[in-house]
Amino acid sequence: MQTKTHTSTESELRQDLVTGDWVIIATGRAKRPEDFVSLQHADIESSRDSCVFEDPNHSGQEPDVLIYRTKDKDWTLRVFPNKFPAVSRGRAPRSLEQGPYFGMTGTGYHEVIVTRDHNRSIALLDVNAVAELADAYQERYLNLMNKKNIRYISIIHNHGKGAGASIAHPHSQLFAVPVISPYVQLELSGSEQYFKSNRSCAYCTMFTYELKRRERIVFENSDFIAFCPYASRSAFEVWVAPKKHSPYFERLNDSAKLLFGEAMKNSLYALYAGLSNPDYNFYVHTAPCDGNDYPHFHWHVEILPKTSTWAGFELSTGIEISTIQPEVAADYLRKQSSY
Amino acid sequence: MQTKTHTSTESELRQDLVTGDWVIIATGRAKRPEDFVSLQHADIESSRDSCVFEDPNHSGQEPDVLIYRTKDKDWTLRVFPNKFPAVSRGRAPRSLEQGPYFGMTGTGYHEVIVTRDHNRSIALLDVNAVAELADAYQERYLNLMNKKNIRYISIIHNHGKGAGASIAHPHSQLFAVPVISPYVQLELSGSEQYFKSNRSCAYCTMFTYELKRRERIVFENSDFIAFCPYASRSAFEVWVAPKKHSPYFERLNDSAKLLFGEAMKNSLYALYAGLSNPDYNFYVHTAPCDGNDYPHFHWHVEILPKTSTWAGFELSTGIEISTIQPEVAADYLRKQSSY
Repeated sequence: MQTKTHTSTESELRQDLVTGDWVIIATGRAKRPEDFVSLQHADIESSRDSCVFEDPNHSGQEPDVLIYRTKDKDWTLRVFPNKFPAVSRGRAPRSLEQGPYFGMTGTGYHEVIVTRDHNRSIALLDVNAVAELADAYQERYLNLMNKKNIRYISIIHNHGKGAGASIAHPHSQLFAVPVISPYVQLELSGSEQYFKSNRSCAYCTMFTYELKRRERIVFENSDFIAFCPYASRSAFEVWVAPKKHSPYFERLNDSAKLLFGEAMKNSLYALYAGLSNPDYNFYVHTAPCDGNDYPHFHWHVEILPKTSTWAGFELSTGIEISTIQPEVAADYLRKQSSY
Repeated sequence: MQTKTHTSTESELRQDLVTGDWVIIATGRAKRPEDFVSLQHADIESSRDSCVFEDPNHSGQEPDVLIYRTKDKDWTLRVFPNKFPAVSRGRAPRSLEQGPYFGMTGTGYHEVIVTRDHNRSIALLDVNAVAELADAYQERYLNLMNKKNIRYISIIHNHGKGAGASIAHPHSQLFAVPVISPYVQLELSGSEQYFKSNRSCAYCTMFTYELKRRERIVFENSDFIAFCPYASRSAFEVWVAPKKHSPYFERLNDSAKLLFGEAMKNSLYALYAGLSNPDYNFYVHTAPCDGNDYPHFHWHVEILPKTSTWAGFELSTGIEISTIQPEVAADYLRKQSSY
């Protein structure tokens, strides 16, 4: 049987025939089957001396695409392409059909955003440094959003081994990909449908109600709200969002960025203090950059602490079980959030 | 503000305002906020002497709803309600609206299915015992599928701490719930749409192609196929499915049950041998029992080994990254599957 082949260093995007779901087969990170045995027990490298992000140039990382420095020229933040990218720069995506299946080469951008201090997670940074991190997110987003074939950009942060971080040094990641997944689509079409039915943004409605009711609020300032969502998928889940309607993270302006940094810092600090530095993931949900407008969407950050393991029922149905009421979680986090 | 309240032992089903996603707040299992600190490091109780499933009656489990015995009257399998249910039996679901949000009391059934041997996971059972397990799944499914307010039944199995098992003794779980989640809906509407466009079942198409191509097959017998899906979401993911079109797991007949047992046992044994007893989840995806027919659907089991951690990108976009090609994984598993 003849099918198009591709070189083994390129990753592949493959689509589920039934759900339209996408997966990435990252052969650039490929392992031998036997390697998966030891992988399960692999520990995170946490010592500063052997940290590959302490001096990225000397540890063989890719050249920086962005670097921020103090007046003394010491770096405070840098961004470089991931050495083991899930998607890789370069050629236009090529179709990789196989029988009834659809796939394509995994082209795109996968970058790492590293803050200076090996031992300071975002919860322990000062607000200016968190705003600077948001700056870097945005600068890279703006740089990549109009690239050919890029339809969605995901900015994420993994903290701790349980949350999938393989390097202890605090770092975020940016993935620019040529597809919009059905999962992202759920929020896009849900908010569009809500807008059509109610002539208002679902998220604005949510935030207005939360600010009135107050029992799920974790933190707020003039421009941002941080709260435990009514339908939290994990215990102590926190969302951070602009109060004013805005579909596009990349349009966050510099004065609001400081307020965003404050809301992020406070939320992460509350988790740090209340749950003794738990593992967590957070990510920015913003409108796609596929050339369409998404006026009904409202960008926000979702913070998911690893307070439990999503097991068979959650994986099978997508219905997550949480063992604490978001109201109780928010009350507890609110008490932690002075620092 | 007046809203309906509910007793703290009842769990709650809450729906995301935007996506329609459901979560369960299982207050029957409720913890104090402080408890989540130690939970992160909790170990699984694995000794046989202190196992609560060795003698369920004496360890304070609920009375059996099903028990299978040998001729000598020793039990081989038993089913009882979960002592800390995610959803609880009893009253009809009551609406629990709150401002713009929709929720309801978490009514349903949550049962535990326990096989006799503390130390024998399914990979190590003989085929008859696996068929007996499938028997129990089916018997409980049939018993609950027509209960009032039950719209979907999920049967799952968690193996190992990393896969969310909190008790080492091999056990499966059945969840009968009053909602069909958007995640399950993706498969239902995807297969319906495929059927409308192609006048054939998407799954049958997939299996026919896999059986012809053979590179992703892990095991097959006359009635069942086990293979690594083209768009595997985790390394070494395996699906087990009937070759003949059938939307409904509960219609699996007794002769096919033995062949199903063989396919399951072989697949799980291949993972056991090849990956040194990895943690995994598996679950049955079958058509809902909500009174509608789903002729276009095709039931199957999905086995997801915990070969990696789904981190920020996966959680944010639903796009899973896997570091081995399903073809390579299947080839490796095929070599393990003689036992």
